[in-house]
Amino acid sequence: MEFMEKLEIYQDIVNNFLEECIKEKDLMEKSIYNAMRYSLLAGGKRLRPVLSLAVCDMLGGDLKEVLPYACAVEMIHTYSLIHDDLPSMDNDDYRRGKLTNHKVFGEALAILAGDGLLNMAFELMLENTSSNCNNIENKVKAMGYIAKSSGVRGMIGGQVVDIESENNEVSVETLEYMHRLKTGALIKASVISAAIICNASNEDIQNLENYAEGIGLAFQIKDDILDVEGNIDKLGKNVGSDASNKKTTYVSIYGLEKSKQMLTEITESAIKSLDSFGGKAAFLKELAEYLVIREM
Amino acid sequence: MEFMEKLEIYQDIVNNFLEECIKEKDLMEKSIYNAMRYSLLAGGKRLRPVLSLAVCDMLGGDLKEVLPYACAVEMIHTYSLIHDDLPSMDNDDYRRGKLTNHKVFGEALAILAGDGLLNMAFELMLENTSSNCNNIENKVKAMGYIAKSSGVRGMIGGQVVDIESENNEVSVETLEYMHRLKTGALIKASVISAAIICNASNEDIQNLENYAEGIGLAFQIKDDILDVEGNIDKLGKNVGSDASNKKTTYVSIYGLEKSKQMLTEITESAIKSLDSFGGKAAFLKELAEYLVIREM
Repeated sequence: MEFMEKLEIYQDIVNNFLEECIKEKDLMEKSIYNAMRYSLLAGGKRLRPVLSLAVCDMLGGDLKEVLPYACAVEMIHTYSLIHDDLPSMDNDDYRRGKLTNHKVFGEALAILAGDGLLNMAFELMLENTSSNCNNIENKVKAMGYIAKSSGVRGMIGGQVVDIESENNEVSVETLEYMHRLKTGALIKASVISAAIICNASNEDIQNLENYAEGIGLAFQIKDDILDVEGNIDKLGKNVGSDASNKKTTYVSIYGLEKSKQMLTEITESAIKSLDSFGGKAAFLKELAEYLVIREM
Repeated sequence: MEFMEKLEIYQDIVNNFLEECIKEKDLMEKSIYNAMRYSLLAGGKRLRPVLSLAVCDMLGGDLKEVLPYACAVEMIHTYSLIHDDLPSMDNDDYRRGKLTNHKVFGEALAILAGDGLLNMAFELMLENTSSNCNNIENKVKAMGYIAKSSGVRGMIGGQVVDIESENNEVSVETLEYMHRLKTGALIKASVISAAIICNASNEDIQNLENYAEGIGLAFQIKDDILDVEGNIDKLGKNVGSDASNKKTTYVSIYGLEKSKQMLTEITESAIKSLDSFGGKAAFLKELAEYLVIREM
């Protein structure tokens, strides 16, 4: 099957599942469901859950087993975007070409919608870790991995370093530390949590860690490049904002050419990490290449 | 042992455990640990974790088994206070006689500290649900109960109804619905999650549910009474704020005398729910009475 066709199948599986997770409700508190749905169903690449499903397929696992955990990570990712966009954080009006959550629902409801999505991620995972499921121990381990990756030792910690670096030039070490926590940790959690649920060997997990760390870093470098030479219509947000905000990026440190070279090398190395999986790794390898050429 | 002595022992166990959970860290993101510690260790009654520990003792369970889940609920309670106090929500400057989190650390870090505490609650619980623990299935069930109670079907949903009721007179049905979700759900989760971990029978859980629902409602009625006739120094916050904010409360609907009568009746009924536990329920019964006479 063609890569793009397979990618869309995975994205459809994710979108359909997420749609079912938050139905419109005729309750007094229905506005929070609307606010959560608004951001959760606003599209996006669905990179994290797609990674989980692709790892599951590669390892011969059952997609139905992995899907709730994959979508929980997408909920966590979505809540972090809602909170990052708030006036006291990045103060962004647009995200993926649509008004940000607080511009539509107000700040109070946007904060609560973020809280609600983070909480719902754990509700969803725990509801799918019932006592009669066949691998409760792996699922608890996978949830623990996701929880650590999204907390102060992962994504939230990275966001703290990011906001405290604003208007300061930061070292390349700080930049890498920040991205490893802010973006890298949750991408890695998508890959590793699926591998844990599918009962992967330690060796397989090690190889998948190398892959996930590589594409996580490549993802960020590509983001920095797109902010310089991306197309505003395709991106759905302004370009050049890093430079005007005096943000330290891979491009501001290494320049455009060197950044592109790093992007290619890191991606090739990530792809090589999957060699031991043979032909079954084709989709994940193509996904890494796709992240290099993406325009949004 | 005297009730107050036992209460302080439980509070000390909780405070010591929470202190260990968030150590000061010499990391780039250390400010978030400071912000989380500030609110988590700001004192308070520790009602929710004390309830968990007391239920565990009554049922003959192991306090060490229940403690992480008890303290996770306190983290969830604390994060909800941080977010509720934000300028876009209740815009409060003081909490328990101390400046609120955002007044000390700024809005961005206060939002992230709240996110960090909610996330850490699940990290803590999941780390204590290891594959070699002796009742992993009960612990997953307890976590699921807590997660549902703190989400949009519980505490967050109640907060949404609360902020949307501002400046509107609401019916007694709306008031009860709001409090059952906003305050009641998490109080009940403290009681029931401990009972689940201690493998309580369905009958015991039913009786504990009646107890928890009663004290949850009584707790709110008492709060409304304290806002009218409380002592500002003991409360650590202003009194009369409900009236000046035109908030519908039990006192505004039923008047002070009728509210006090309801408080007494509901508490007596809650206490009666524990009769089947005999003398072992003494502490929980006295705790219900203590909540009636409390001055903060």
